[in-house]
Amino acid sequence: MKLKIKKDLLLDGLTKVSKAISTKNLVPVLAGIKFELDENGLTLTASDNDITIQVFLEKNGNDMIIDHVGSIIIQGKYILDIVRKLPDEFINIEVVDDLKIIIYTENSEFNLNGISKSEYPNITLESSKNPILVDSRIFRSIINQTSFASSNDEARPILTGLNFKILGNTLECNSTDSYRLARKIIQLEQTVEDNYNIVIPSKNLLEFIKIMNDSSEKLELHVFNNKILIKFCNLLFQSRLISGTYPNTSNLLPDEFILNIKANIADLYNVIDRASILTSDKEKNIVTFEINTNTLYVRSSSAEIGRVEEKMSIENDGHESLKISFVAKYMMEALKSFEDSTVKISFVGEVKPIILSSEKDENLTQLVLPIRTY
Amino acid sequence: MKLKIKKDLLLDGLTKVSKAISTKNLVPVLAGIKFELDENGLTLTASDNDITIQVFLEKNGNDMIIDHVGSIIIQGKYILDIVRKLPDEFINIEVVDDLKIIIYTENSEFNLNGISKSEYPNITLESSKNPILVDSRIFRSIINQTSFASSNDEARPILTGLNFKILGNTLECNSTDSYRLARKIIQLEQTVEDNYNIVIPSKNLLEFIKIMNDSSEKLELHVFNNKILIKFCNLLFQSRLISGTYPNTSNLLPDEFILNIKANIADLYNVIDRASILTSDKEKNIVTFEINTNTLYVRSSSAEIGRVEEKMSIENDGHESLKISFVAKYMMEALKSFEDSTVKISFVGEVKPIILSSEKDENLTQLVLPIRTY
Repeated sequence: MKLKIKKDLLLDGLTKVSKAISTKNLVPVLAGIKFELDENGLTLTASDNDITIQVFLEKNGNDMIIDHVGSIIIQGKYILDIVRKLPDEFINIEVVDDLKIIIYTENSEFNLNGISKSEYPNITLESSKNPILVDSRIFRSIINQTSFASSNDEARPILTGLNFKILGNTLECNSTDSYRLARKIIQLEQTVEDNYNIVIPSKNLLEFIKIMNDSSEKLELHVFNNKILIKFCNLLFQSRLISGTYPNTSNLLPDEFILNIKANIADLYNVIDRASILTSDKEKNIVTFEINTNTLYVRSSSAEIGRVEEKMSIENDGHESLKISFVAKYMMEALKSFEDSTVKISFVGEVKPIILSSEKDENLTQLVLPIRTY
Repeated sequence: MKLKIKKDLLLDGLTKVSKAISTKNLVPVLAGIKFELDENGLTLTASDNDITIQVFLEKNGNDMIIDHVGSIIIQGKYILDIVRKLPDEFINIEVVDDLKIIIYTENSEFNLNGISKSEYPNITLESSKNPILVDSRIFRSIINQTSFASSNDEARPILTGLNFKILGNTLECNSTDSYRLARKIIQLEQTVEDNYNIVIPSKNLLEFIKIMNDSSEKLELHVFNNKILIKFCNLLFQSRLISGTYPNTSNLLPDEFILNIKANIADLYNVIDRASILTSDKEKNIVTFEINTNTLYVRSSSAEIGRVEEKMSIENDGHESLKISFVAKYMMEALKSFEDSTVKISFVGEVKPIILSSEKDENLTQLVLPIRTY
């Protein structure tokens, strides 16, 4: 293998695939990045068995001069650091004596020990016949607006994933840790022949959206029995699916409310943030809403530390009063998910789910369960 | 105690003194900040027994309205968070029933449990008759240019401090971890009557320069037997001294050299940075300089990972060649300490100290010990 390649092009590819390199990998070869060079360009692949990322860098004008095709595995950590720190516009990579890699520019020369391509596990990145097309920016929103509600607790693996239900031309995404629920529903541009009900690890989807560029190209979802392949621009991202049945969340959302309030999201967020200062455990700080016509009181107290009361103006369509308690962090994360300045919060009763929605973002629903404080 | 105070003023004071609050403090009252209000203003004090920080917020125009003088200890962590997050321009603080603190603005009210001033340890922040005056910007440079060379190893406590030797109108600062030495000498504007040879914990001085503002006021050093008090603007900063005899470093610096090179600091830093990529232990990566008239080769190798060679142009007054090895991190930190674009590096021999100096910064000397590689 021998090529000369534009530094920025290579660095972008290496940065993306390196997200799939695990430092605590039990299979040493998986700490490497697979370089495969053919006449059309350079394919980079990395995998930690949970996710696999592949980037194709196409030969395009003078960005790449291909001298000898071939392939090699290079230690991911070092090659990324080398390419990042070299100041030159172009970088030469050459394999000599089968497994010796030379990376050089005018004043710098790195000699690395490579690993033969044959030692790399055989990871197939196959396409399905009928991929599901999704607008890439909407896909990014779905992940950002729902993944925070997934659980981090591996004791119930199914709740650590996002549930995608695809039926006809609708994609419904649910995320719950059993204390709250985030739901986003989008309309697809095509009608999908098969129905899908899958669970994808949330942390893998978060990795994917980190390496997505801002292209307006459509994204393709290729769903298989135990894995999903996402194709986007020159990027292939494959994740395992979580097996098991996702809890049915559709009956959780009430449709009749005794009281709706409207509030400015940033203001309400800051009020709850201040109300939750007085705690030694940020994860579990309980805050109480007391709604009194057009005033919202937000209160919290801790026997050892003290207590706090905040008040703010709200719109209230019911002119009723209500007192309800919840975990501050859950409400704050739900508020932050709306791409709007105003939120509508709907209540069924003091021990019933709290529903958040917004006019601008009708397809997003956030549910937070209240906490009994008596 | 009752006052109304401008938020920004209070926040600045609290942010500064809070650096002295230790979360792992064994004396619970030291997790608090002492508020002392008299007719002239508010004094804030915090201490972790190692350092004590006191800030005086002077009543000045409408920044502060003093209603009732008095004093109280408030939990440092909470009061800082509350003041930081309140959106109001002014904040009211009131003590009721002796130990109940109310912090309030138009829409927010916090009730905190306070601690009586009488429970706070009696920390004296006394002044000496003859403080040493130092330009505050020069003082900041001294700390930044030397403290990195101190040891982090508590096994030899004396090396975790900066050695200040004050004699006549000269202040000499030394810092060494026994593998390298940083020395800065400054001229004082006055001649000091007493001589001093003290060792101040480096981490404490780093805390001090973090909270220094950019005022051009002179800074006062008040030296005592086992502590030093630094006065600067409205800030008092007291640190313990490290007892013991600091190693005599004056005979370490050679004065005759066989070879001097001059190089661009940023370029040389980057070359060494790249040469030290191929290591699994960044703390101990050994790099070799090979000087050949006007070319410097920088090499490093690791049996498992590979090897690297960088070359760069230098000025060389000796036209001799030399090969010398050292720990990359030590050389890089020494290079970074110069406020100049060019460094002079002087060599005595392959196993003798390497000396770094710069024309613009004549009072700063960096020494790095070489490593025998054969």
